[in-house]
Amino acid sequence: MTALDDRSVQSTVTTGPITGSEKVYHDVHDPDSGRTLRVPQRRVGLSNGSHLDLYDTSGPYTDTTASIDVHTGIPATREDWIAGRGPVDGASTQLAYAKAGVTTPEMRFIAAREGMDPEFVRSEVAIGRAVIPANRCHPESEPMVIGKNFLVKVNANIGNSAVTSSVPEEMEKMVWATRWGADTLMDLSTGKRIHETRERIIRNSPVPVGTVPIYQAVEKVDGDPAKLTWEIYRDTVIEQAEQGVDYMTVHAGVLLRYVPLTTERVTGIVSRGGSIMAAWCLAHHEESFLYTHFEELCEIFRDYDITFSLGDGLRPGSVADANDEAQFAELRTLGELTHIARSHGVQVMIEGPGHVPLHKIAENVRLEEELCGEAPFYTLGPLATDIAPGYDHITSAIGAAQVAWSGTAMLCYVTPKEHLGLPNRDDVKTGVITYKLAAHSADLAKGHPRAQEWDDTLSRSRFEFRWQDQFHLALDPDTAQAYHDETLPAEGAKTA
Amino acid sequence: MTALDDRSVQSTVTTGPITGSEKVYHDVHDPDSGRTLRVPQRRVGLSNGSHLDLYDTSGPYTDTTASIDVHTGIPATREDWIAGRGPVDGASTQLAYAKAGVTTPEMRFIAAREGMDPEFVRSEVAIGRAVIPANRCHPESEPMVIGKNFLVKVNANIGNSAVTSSVPEEMEKMVWATRWGADTLMDLSTGKRIHETRERIIRNSPVPVGTVPIYQAVEKVDGDPAKLTWEIYRDTVIEQAEQGVDYMTVHAGVLLRYVPLTTERVTGIVSRGGSIMAAWCLAHHEESFLYTHFEELCEIFRDYDITFSLGDGLRPGSVADANDEAQFAELRTLGELTHIARSHGVQVMIEGPGHVPLHKIAENVRLEEELCGEAPFYTLGPLATDIAPGYDHITSAIGAAQVAWSGTAMLCYVTPKEHLGLPNRDDVKTGVITYKLAAHSADLAKGHPRAQEWDDTLSRSRFEFRWQDQFHLALDPDTAQAYHDETLPAEGAKTA
Repeated sequence: MTALDDRSVQSTVTTGPITGSEKVYHDVHDPDSGRTLRVPQRRVGLSNGSHLDLYDTSGPYTDTTASIDVHTGIPATREDWIAGRGPVDGASTQLAYAKAGVTTPEMRFIAAREGMDPEFVRSEVAIGRAVIPANRCHPESEPMVIGKNFLVKVNANIGNSAVTSSVPEEMEKMVWATRWGADTLMDLSTGKRIHETRERIIRNSPVPVGTVPIYQAVEKVDGDPAKLTWEIYRDTVIEQAEQGVDYMTVHAGVLLRYVPLTTERVTGIVSRGGSIMAAWCLAHHEESFLYTHFEELCEIFRDYDITFSLGDGLRPGSVADANDEAQFAELRTLGELTHIARSHGVQVMIEGPGHVPLHKIAENVRLEEELCGEAPFYTLGPLATDIAPGYDHITSAIGAAQVAWSGTAMLCYVTPKEHLGLPNRDDVKTGVITYKLAAHSADLAKGHPRAQEWDDTLSRSRFEFRWQDQFHLALDPDTAQAYHDETLPAEGAKTA
Repeated sequence: MTALDDRSVQSTVTTGPITGSEKVYHDVHDPDSGRTLRVPQRRVGLSNGSHLDLYDTSGPYTDTTASIDVHTGIPATREDWIAGRGPVDGASTQLAYAKAGVTTPEMRFIAAREGMDPEFVRSEVAIGRAVIPANRCHPESEPMVIGKNFLVKVNANIGNSAVTSSVPEEMEKMVWATRWGADTLMDLSTGKRIHETRERIIRNSPVPVGTVPIYQAVEKVDGDPAKLTWEIYRDTVIEQAEQGVDYMTVHAGVLLRYVPLTTERVTGIVSRGGSIMAAWCLAHHEESFLYTHFEELCEIFRDYDITFSLGDGLRPGSVADANDEAQFAELRTLGELTHIARSHGVQVMIEGPGHVPLHKIAENVRLEEELCGEAPFYTLGPLATDIAPGYDHITSAIGAAQVAWSGTAMLCYVTPKEHLGLPNRDDVKTGVITYKLAAHSADLAKGHPRAQEWDDTLSRSRFEFRWQDQFHLALDPDTAQAYHDETLPAEGAKTA
């Protein structure tokens, strides 16, 4: 009996709308299928009678009319869409469809969310400058796009560990992170019950879910990287693919010959996946099986429409190591692999650092775009300085805003516990809100057509002392109101 | 009897070193006077036997050998230096000395703090690209420099209000803000006991103190801007000058003809000083008395060596209003006033916005430098987006890091309560730490010679799992350790 079947496992998740908002749906007609697509929005009603509709990632949990049962999962909206279509050029991927000129329902849904033309979405996916992570085995997810010409996206890492947390806690983190705006989730669970935790998360997640399969694979060999084999890894990927993982981090660019490039670094290799693969390469003195079997991996990914998130196993772990030869050597290999994956009809994004001082950030984006055919860049921060543990959500938001403005398509959040411990529910919220504001700062700077309206609506309410409107329009209405009420608790202070 | 004399007013302030640090002094010989200057440093001892000395703003409060009595104030170290020198070219200002080729003890002290050559400090002050705010009536302050070629500085606003807080609370905020790294303080007190609060703060402040004299002047006319006169304002400035205020914000660039430029804005005029002066100009339909009497003001400032902080009364209050004609018209006038002040031997810095999206930040710095003869730029944030009240320390740290990297010399902090309420002691710390990390990110990007060593020392301790060293090297050791201990409280987890 898995945790999902075990009705005694209570998962109480947060439901109900964000303060001052209500869930609405925009109906979008799909002329190809005749279907009506229901595109969710967070509607903020204002005291002057108007309203503002905002991009919404929270799924049915904020819909007061939805019935939530974490044991059955959320509705499989995409099931019919997937069933009703066959392969083109041997692939049933969004990339293959886009290249063949097919505008999928996913693309139309995305276009409505972003306020863009469906044809623009299709063309960006076709050239690989955007990806739609959407495993055919995860029909519950609401389609979203990752690409530099769309809203900057935010990923939240969750997952239990051998030390702390349980399946219900991770379920709540999933709902909680998407409530505050996480566009994708990565389940980085380790320890016991990895499979069950993932199953529960995917069946209930309204956003794409990513994983790092090597983490589970190494658990299967008692944590000893040297015992890993291609077969164990491949079977782990298939297991996860069947569950519906939408994108997978693969550290296929950590080549044997790159490992010595890290020996003079201040902080060596800090990526867990990078360390595992470096240890394997050195133990066997062989080239990485992720690299040598990459085309087989592409075929598996193609069959499910899983998106590659090519991992930066040699990313810098300190500002001192940023933009060094180890990092850029790996990036060149990731570029090579990008083109191989695309030739199999598989979507690709590229992971980026980590720790980079402000003046070296733009070079990362420029090189990534040049070497990897403009595949969407997906960076962890980066932290712009290393001197503030406990505040690394902020040191990294500074780098994140900068790198997103330069063209990074998705930001992996960093919580206040980074480098120190495991994030709790509050840390998850702080991380998500911090990254949403960094992403939005970049959307403004890049001139996304729907970005500035939000700022202006809030600023007008501020200037006119419409306090409740200001709270409700905030990324986090509850904190805004609580801070106000600490100084001026009287009701009159919110209306005058 | 003033609050300072009233021994029944208990001011308990935080004393003792920061966790893991000790106060040390570097002795610096001044060849001109034969004096030995004692330059304070925060020394972090490491478990491998080495140590790192860091720039220290905390004054005697972190020195275990110092005896603190807030009723008598801290030692007047500069008293002898000031007494022993006369005017050059009619002025006893750091600018006048620098232009005459004199390297003051203040400049030597600063050079040692910054790791720079004294002659470089002198030359930067001489051309007005750096300022040393040091009123001759504030001999207690430890000299510091504000200029783009030095460490980026952080100002913390404190001050009581009619609504909340007391003199002892503001005293503690002063000690608390400088403990965590505030380089200057602005006392923005309103309501009762403005004079007494300021007196107590200045006598006990190891850092320069700034004010906005128009705030007190308008209290003297019952809060009605129309009743203000040049004479009331002038007398207020002299009152504050005698107390030792080191720099004053003067909104002399809000000209009558600029006020109509703000009518089409989303958020009109949001600067309090700007609003007061705009109201005065409109009520009298006359040019601002700050502008028409500017040369008289210069003479007062020169006599005390007060530094102008020319205020941006027409700064944008939302990203929508950034870089508009009202803002830049005022900036041109501030440039004109800069040259007048300098001709009187008076030091000048220029205040900047506020709310600016990322892509418009660099233009602010470029124009300020061009129009104001490279006078040090002193910005409030700026916030890179308006959608996150409750998190404006972060939205503004993103803008602050960017603007400092572009050349801003000092950043005015923003706390989580910005736009919502009055900061408490915790908010002050969060604001200061957030701005220190933003400033340091810019120091790294600009290549300040002492910046990277701190990051590398911390990163090495992290890579070698020297947890205590990592905590002690952090900007905020207590929070770093507390976050670690939430997950892994055992002592063993900090050593292995």
